[in-house]
Amino acid sequence: MKTSTPMPVIFDTDPGIDDAMALYLLARHPALDLRAVTTVFGNASIEVTSRNGQLLAAMFGQQVPVAAGAAGPLHAHAEREFSVHVHGDDGVGGMAALLEAEVPPLDARPAYQLICDMVNAEPGAITLIAVGPLTNLALALRHDPSIVAKVHRVIVMGGAFGTAARCGNVTPVAEANIINDPEAADLVFSADWPVVIVGLDVTHETVMSEAYLSSLQGRGGVVGDFIWKATRHYQDFYQACAGIDGIYAHDASAIAYAIEPEAFTLRSGPVRVVTDGIARGQTIQDFRKLSLAQTPWSGCPAQQVCIGVQAERVLALFEQAFDAA
Amino acid sequence: MKTSTPMPVIFDTDPGIDDAMALYLLARHPALDLRAVTTVFGNASIEVTSRNGQLLAAMFGQQVPVAAGAAGPLHAHAEREFSVHVHGDDGVGGMAALLEAEVPPLDARPAYQLICDMVNAEPGAITLIAVGPLTNLALALRHDPSIVAKVHRVIVMGGAFGTAARCGNVTPVAEANIINDPEAADLVFSADWPVVIVGLDVTHETVMSEAYLSSLQGRGGVVGDFIWKATRHYQDFYQACAGIDGIYAHDASAIAYAIEPEAFTLRSGPVRVVTDGIARGQTIQDFRKLSLAQTPWSGCPAQQVCIGVQAERVLALFEQAFDAA
Repeated sequence: MKTSTPMPVIFDTDPGIDDAMALYLLARHPALDLRAVTTVFGNASIEVTSRNGQLLAAMFGQQVPVAAGAAGPLHAHAEREFSVHVHGDDGVGGMAALLEAEVPPLDARPAYQLICDMVNAEPGAITLIAVGPLTNLALALRHDPSIVAKVHRVIVMGGAFGTAARCGNVTPVAEANIINDPEAADLVFSADWPVVIVGLDVTHETVMSEAYLSSLQGRGGVVGDFIWKATRHYQDFYQACAGIDGIYAHDASAIAYAIEPEAFTLRSGPVRVVTDGIARGQTIQDFRKLSLAQTPWSGCPAQQVCIGVQAERVLALFEQAFDAA
Repeated sequence: MKTSTPMPVIFDTDPGIDDAMALYLLARHPALDLRAVTTVFGNASIEVTSRNGQLLAAMFGQQVPVAAGAAGPLHAHAEREFSVHVHGDDGVGGMAALLEAEVPPLDARPAYQLICDMVNAEPGAITLIAVGPLTNLALALRHDPSIVAKVHRVIVMGGAFGTAARCGNVTPVAEANIINDPEAADLVFSADWPVVIVGLDVTHETVMSEAYLSSLQGRGGVVGDFIWKATRHYQDFYQACAGIDGIYAHDASAIAYAIEPEAFTLRSGPVRVVTDGIARGQTIQDFRKLSLAQTPWSGCPAQQVCIGVQAERVLALFEQAFDAA
């Protein structure tokens, strides 16, 4: 991979602690070429995630445009609740004060416009990696439907497909990114571009233990210390809620897929998102070989869902990012 | 089991080929004591399933009341389509002509009334085994909510919980019995009586091969020949739709659970049914140990879902029914 041309990537994100870790891996790995960061509400408000996006890009030495995106889902529902119990008030576990870099201003364009512009400038080249609610991607699709034929690939961290008895993290069937904007996710998965979905089925397989995180201290310049400190609050949450001594590497798994797709097992079939009732936010793939009846999945393009992962390869990739620093 | 008191059972059914097989096992096994048959729409119209119920009870030597139940779901939706592509126009694969027994008249009561009367007559004794849409059970609950405390157990064939990558047989997530009346199923699973759900997660593990079915010919009086002939159409359907050389033992699996529960692996947690949108008819169990948020599952009683089966024990039980004849 390292000798071939790096893959140009727009990173759509709501940092977020694991977003920060994903961006670090993306910034460090020679197989990937970060072109822009677009931000979205989710783990915190759009003001907080945009500021974090600027600070993190600067901290990781990335001189790329950062464009702010959607402040809420396509269809406004009840008052938003952000995941402050997971990611802290500042979205990065109380560590925003550590991020005291000088940052360039935000890009003047809204995120969806930046996405459309960059995709149109290099048809077939850009990979979109989205690790927050899919609102910006849906808005880009609405703004310029022609981009479906010009995006190289869409890689999404989100969803839960119930394999290996995995379940959602907000409801028994819904994952946070998807339930934050189910209508947007349904548009993105139903569009005729190639989507790979990296959901809880695989991210719950990849646990960064306390020992693993501790070993990052003092490495990668200030980054190892930052990640260790930022994950203290996040780890407490997982200890209380999932009973694990560590954290799930949700967003970094999407970057790992971009670098080493062969570390993942895929399942093919159209994917829809439930937008009504008690299953709102559930991702459902029709992977049946044969089906007699016409269903809401009929006619939708086959997308790829990750149903297996070699977790040790994801952990090794992330650790190598520190050695390369 | 054979020396203890047999378990009194009301069998709620929409025969249906695998319903006929289930009723045969129920009628033959000494651990079970069939007290009544109640019929419901589903595999065919209520007229057809009720006539089949009468004929099958007579064929299997069961002098019990047969009461006709619901002709459609609690909430009427579009025009009903019956599963004639699966079970044939007559509900039993074109073999109704073979069922030429004299039959006593139907019980004068509707099914839900018979259920309430029998349950109230023997509080704590009756097991309800339901292998069709759950409309009759929901109507009984509405008619007399006090029966929740008086039914010994409810055993349901229905639903699909997505374990072992199993999926629905009508949509990617919905099983036929449940999608035929999701509102009724949600009432039955949310009620505070003990429910065991025998769904596609286990019934798709238990395949009666063509060789197995063929070996039944000439056994059990006329029954083996009847089952062989009745399953020819049904098997063709499974060959075309599921690619298996045999049939799934859906309804017989619910009877097998009543006889040998230790052949099944259970998972505990509240179960709700999706009534809206593209996931309509999906059964969802919240089996998470810890949950922070209030969800539609909160406050619902834990029910038992079968997630594993020793299929050879189900097949052996069914075959033994022929030896006992």
